[in-house]
Amino acid sequence: MNSLLLVAHGSRREASNNEIRNLARTMQRNSGNRFGEIGCAFLELAEPSIPDGIRQCIERGATRVTVFPYFLAAGRHVTTDIPAEVDKISKQYPDTLITIATHLGASGAMSELILEQAGHQRGDEP
Amino acid sequence: MNSLLLVAHGSRREASNNEIRNLARTMQRNSGNRFGEIGCAFLELAEPSIPDGIRQCIERGATRVTVFPYFLAAGRHVTTDIPAEVDKISKQYPDTLITIATHLGASGAMSELILEQAGHQRGDEP
Repeated sequence: MNSLLLVAHGSRREASNNEIRNLARTMQRNSGNRFGEIGCAFLELAEPSIPDGIRQCIERGATRVTVFPYFLAAGRHVTTDIPAEVDKISKQYPDTLITIATHLGASGAMSELILEQAGHQRGDEP
Repeated sequence: MNSLLLVAHGSRREASNNEIRNLARTMQRNSGNRFGEIGCAFLELAEPSIPDGIRQCIERGATRVTVFPYFLAAGRHVTTDIPAEVDKISKQYPDTLITIATHLGASGAMSELILEQAGHQRGDEP
């Protein structure tokens, strides 16, 4: 089973963490056959941690886990901290392929998503 | 003319600020006839500020400016700080319609964007 783990920074504001949990649930509903299971994890300040999130995927049957950094910029969290967290757990599960996808902000589709969203809202104004 | 102003947090890391400037340029190229001009501004740590960015739009001919918060979570920056910055300048330009779009993280298209991006990358792996 291929699992996708959405990884966000985590916030002291629980409503922000719940936005991520809700997004993961929406993705699960919309996933079709692309991923067997979709979960989320947090770099800090919220649970589950990245190692715990990956471990949960594997315990539920994942043989492959794609970690998706839900971050806009390729700062230290994306380039260093998330790979270090993934590395910790990868060594414990050598038979599971754990990969890290390109972070959200690098998506080539971002430009169009923003133009669509902002354009519609503009159109809705009087 | 309708202008779109992409508003990011701003970073001490200039490469992150340049990611935003590049995104605004990409959006300008892809905009078609949806916006006359697309620029960017920063809440803190980088230039231009939000009031300066809006002022530049207006000086270049905007009669309507849509401010787009390039933020994932509806935290204090989105709910309070950006509206306060926009409010400062709105009073100086009563003839310009300045609106704030829903922040990026609330986009209904986000789920599909991530599934597409993560799914393709998964497919590229051996």
